[in-house]
Amino acid sequence: MNPGAFDALLKGECDYSVVPFENSTNGSVVFTFDILRDIIHAPGTKSNGNIAPPLQVVEEVFVPINHCLLTTATDLSQVKRLYTHPQAWGQVDHYLAAHFSPADVERLDTDSTSAAVGIAKTDPEGAAIASSAASVVHDVPIFQANISNKKDNTTRFLVFARADPQHAGSAVYPDPALHVAADVKREKKGSLASFIVQNDKPGALCATLQEFAQSNISLTSINSRPSGKGAWSYVFYIEFEGDALHDNAVSSAVARAAKNCLEFCILGSFYRA
Amino acid sequence: MNPGAFDALLKGECDYSVVPFENSTNGSVVFTFDILRDIIHAPGTKSNGNIAPPLQVVEEVFVPINHCLLTTATDLSQVKRLYTHPQAWGQVDHYLAAHFSPADVERLDTDSTSAAVGIAKTDPEGAAIASSAASVVHDVPIFQANISNKKDNTTRFLVFARADPQHAGSAVYPDPALHVAADVKREKKGSLASFIVQNDKPGALCATLQEFAQSNISLTSINSRPSGKGAWSYVFYIEFEGDALHDNAVSSAVARAAKNCLEFCILGSFYRA
Repeated sequence: MNPGAFDALLKGECDYSVVPFENSTNGSVVFTFDILRDIIHAPGTKSNGNIAPPLQVVEEVFVPINHCLLTTATDLSQVKRLYTHPQAWGQVDHYLAAHFSPADVERLDTDSTSAAVGIAKTDPEGAAIASSAASVVHDVPIFQANISNKKDNTTRFLVFARADPQHAGSAVYPDPALHVAADVKREKKGSLASFIVQNDKPGALCATLQEFAQSNISLTSINSRPSGKGAWSYVFYIEFEGDALHDNAVSSAVARAAKNCLEFCILGSFYRA
Repeated sequence: MNPGAFDALLKGECDYSVVPFENSTNGSVVFTFDILRDIIHAPGTKSNGNIAPPLQVVEEVFVPINHCLLTTATDLSQVKRLYTHPQAWGQVDHYLAAHFSPADVERLDTDSTSAAVGIAKTDPEGAAIASSAASVVHDVPIFQANISNKKDNTTRFLVFARADPQHAGSAVYPDPALHVAADVKREKKGSLASFIVQNDKPGALCATLQEFAQSNISLTSINSRPSGKGAWSYVFYIEFEGDALHDNAVSSAVARAAKNCLEFCILGSFYRA
């Protein structure tokens, strides 16, 4: 995950960016969290209360990730170098541990799993961990399919659009063709927020979360990352049930929660997949 | 971070293991969280309420991390390969971006920053990112000192001991010489807990955290990692103020919180540094 997808969106070069957010085996995609932090809560800037974000989540998509080993080598003993995106190693480490000795085989990180296949194609002693689709795109054979630790290995992607100032951040999602299928009925909405609390103020995080609990709003995920505004200061990312942009009960709980925070941002409300 | 430090402790080969837990620039050390998960909440095992852990935290230590570039090369243009632990890349990426082109220089992950120096020593086109101490140990020159993005880059380590069943998990810390200094007065205690809530039960996480808030116990950190017990099920790690093992007010709040959880474990109470 490099900042390119968000950059292209913010520059108007595309209408949507699809970014990985969380993998069922390997957890949060911290690269995505940290790029969002740099956009929304830019390090070096001062706290300024409620933040109107330049982009917003409009959709979530679950994609099964069936990693494969792709190589032009005909025998595993020929492989001296493995290539993949850093997020993938932890999803396939059972297979790697069973077939490669760390002493003999180097592991190299690439910008994407697809890029790994492009590099492995030029290296007769190289193999890439990537999707079966990348085998077709780069014309590199699949040596072993489905090498993920877990058979149900899945990555949740979020679809971002630019925030529309006309709609004060409301998630207008104009192209129904982008939905997974026309007959999929989605009823429940969720929202994503990021915030920073005063890191030396006891109870500030609890007070923020308590506003949700007292309004019977379920948290569905919580993550923290260094804020870049001094050691041991964090950006928290939470997801919760309900529409923080259009449901008054939710948005007033959010407003109360935000009062405990130095910075607070609603990154979007969207139908749960 | 490999499981070796915990393995050696549990096998009785050492009395203490010092493991990295969190870096001020790069956030949680997920390797440590996931090894703890495999020890405490072993994937494949069924939930069994309160868990008596086989190990416990007895101390926290903050260590300034001054990364250096170590190489036998005499000019950066000779460097074709960079070696370090995966946790370190994000702490030095400003320096790397300024001095190395990703197209020309490969990045290779190693088991530790010290191991990276051992490998770089044998590679005339290699350079390692590691501490100045590793320069002495492996006899590899420091090309550039202090290349961390942040001048105050610090890693918080936790010191683990085996849990003493005689003391029902209480943190008896027998060797005062291990304390940072005899004249350092430590007064505040903190505790570390891990737990799993039913992932399809709305509000279970909030209900758990709320027990702390209602007892005026401040949360000081919260992290989540995939539990390994099915997709989208998490192990949560929380740290909070107070002594969960010896302070009745704290331990009764903890007992109420644990009732909301499928699995709950106090990993130790220790003086805050």
